[in-house]
Amino acid sequence: MKIGAIEAGGTKFVCAVSDEQLTIVAREQIPTTTPAETMGAVISFFQKNPVDAMGIGSFGPIDVAVNSATYGYITATPKVGWRDYDFLGTMKKAFDIPYVWTTDVNVAAYGELKLGAAQGLKSCVYLTVGTGIGGGAVINGQLLHGFGHPEMGHMLIRHDPADTYQGHCPFHADCLEGLAAGPALEQRYQRKAQTLAGDDPAWTLEANYLAQACVDLTVTLSPEMIIFGGGVMKQQQLFPLIRQQFAQQLAGYVPTPAIDDYIVPVQLGDNAGITGCLLLAQEQLR
Amino acid sequence: MKIGAIEAGGTKFVCAVSDEQLTIVAREQIPTTTPAETMGAVISFFQKNPVDAMGIGSFGPIDVAVNSATYGYITATPKVGWRDYDFLGTMKKAFDIPYVWTTDVNVAAYGELKLGAAQGLKSCVYLTVGTGIGGGAVINGQLLHGFGHPEMGHMLIRHDPADTYQGHCPFHADCLEGLAAGPALEQRYQRKAQTLAGDDPAWTLEANYLAQACVDLTVTLSPEMIIFGGGVMKQQQLFPLIRQQFAQQLAGYVPTPAIDDYIVPVQLGDNAGITGCLLLAQEQLR
Ligand SMILES: Nc1ncnc2c1ncn2[C@@H]1O[C@H](COP(=O)(O)OP(=O)(O)O)[C@@H](O)[C@H]1O
Ligand SMILES: Nc1ncnc2c1ncn2[C@@H]1O[C@H](COP(=O)(O)OP(=O)(O)O)[C@@H](O)[C@H]1O
Ligand SMILES: [Zn+2]
Ligand SMILES: [Zn+2]
Repeated sequence: MKIGAIEAGGTKFVCAVSDEQLTIVAREQIPTTTPAETMGAVISFFQKNPVDAMGIGSFGPIDVAVNSATYGYITATPKVGWRDYDFLGTMKKAFDIPYVWTTDVNVAAYGELKLGAAQGLKSCVYLTVGTGIGGGAVINGQLLHGFGHPEMGHMLIRHDPADTYQGHCPFHADCLEGLAAGPALEQRYQRKAQTLAGDDPAWTLEANYLAQACVDLTVTLSPEMIIFGGGVMKQQQLFPLIRQQFAQQLAGYVPTPAIDDYIVPVQLGDNAGITGCLLLAQEQLR
Repeated sequence: MKIGAIEAGGTKFVCAVSDEQLTIVAREQIPTTTPAETMGAVISFFQKNPVDAMGIGSFGPIDVAVNSATYGYITATPKVGWRDYDFLGTMKKAFDIPYVWTTDVNVAAYGELKLGAAQGLKSCVYLTVGTGIGGGAVINGQLLHGFGHPEMGHMLIRHDPADTYQGHCPFHADCLEGLAAGPALEQRYQRKAQTLAGDDPAWTLEANYLAQACVDLTVTLSPEMIIFGGGVMKQQQLFPLIRQQFAQQLAGYVPTPAIDDYIVPVQLGDNAGITGCLLLAQEQLR
């Protein structure tokens, strides 16, 4: 028995095949260009490396409502060619096997819960802070789906009055993503986020916004752990700053787990998503 | 077979017993005074009306972490005598039957999902706006528990700059509860909320705050429905105002269900909680 995984991102797709012990036996990166080209390469990879079940974590927004006519589609993405694209249907036509279909951040949350930072827990949130901000969650051991999937990057947070940057979200201007994703740092300070010194006040402001997101996630979801990944979170100094401002903002109202075990970096790194896909596919074969 | 329910509130406990068809055969209201007095009356009610399983929805904060040493306790409540009170343990000592233990708002969400506004759905949020603001949820058909239970009243929302009222939450001042619970209305306008005219601008401000909560709940939980109950929500004119401001704030980013079916009033009214308790207890007997 072989298990398949696709982590479908806006710049690249990662395809992987593992055995039943989740040891990866084949892996390929495919650039995200047109659906015809990218999906052609994906399908030929799995023709060469056939699998018995597959987990797919896709960039969004996607339709995860099983009774919807467009279930399995990528929906309102600005990415040319991918809007209203029947991703899951295309895969099903090529390979008639069981699938799990969800977001890139939900599979990362699942991977971290089973084999990463949140092992042994039943719930966690995974937030990626990169070109955008995305969030996924596992609750009671299950992927968080409702009428759709979470869009945690668009939480409405409090804009620091001293921060004159207006935010770049085309829908909300100064939502979480508009104020705290990588491009917000670059536009606010007119330089690459990577080039800001570790003790630059930029990180205190960034931590303020991310701490607010943690407070709102805590009081709405009560997750056992909040895990951060993505390019911006490579700045390790953010973690103590977020924890400190989180504690201040929450003001002791809710007895969260110990803060150093509550707001933490991703443990599986770039493998969180693929790991989650494989685990979810594996469960389809039980 | 008989099924029991306790909806434990800060001013009164409602105890009920039903048959297997959930037809209520006995019911009693008991004022919330001291644990000894109130729980004594609760226990003697169920001695007269024995049951085979029981659902309890309690005012909080409570400990819902099954592996915790204080599982089943009411924890940090300011209510004299009830702090660190072993509610579930007291019941178990009196009656050795299966229990479901959760918050008053989680049971209301469950009741609404199974027999109220959200029938046929798998997820919903229930928010009560009264003396405080509390929120519960059902996700994938299950009560939302994580490290603890949600405390949705304490979301950090954006304080309208034109609103000079500073908020009354002792922890956060101007969190959702601090700005939008009944006492906030009373302190801001120096009169009972009930006496404000239906077209008073107070309701537009109230709707702004509640709409923000709906946006944050939408992007974090993706619930299929958001249901409002509690004294303040008796002001029916709030619903169109909340829906309108919600649509404006979300700016079309997420394709929620049709707004009139998405943000709705509680359908079971004061029976939502007891109904949820009975349903949860009933499942213990399957
Ligand atoms: N070491 C770093 N420090 C700060 N910001 C970084 C770092 N690495 C990447 N970034 C920022 O993260 C964003 C890219 O995010 P990343 O998670 O790497 O990719 P993507 O979100 O496109 O998948 C860019 O805005 C970049 O400036
Ligand atoms: N018809 C009404 N219109 C506006 N506010 C109301 C109304 N009825 C009750 N309230 C307000 O709701 C609060 C009481 O909430 P309620 O849900 O009735 O009880 P509790 O939260 O204590 O269980 C009070 O602050 C009161 O002013
Ligand atoms: Zn946004
Ligand atoms: Zn508060």
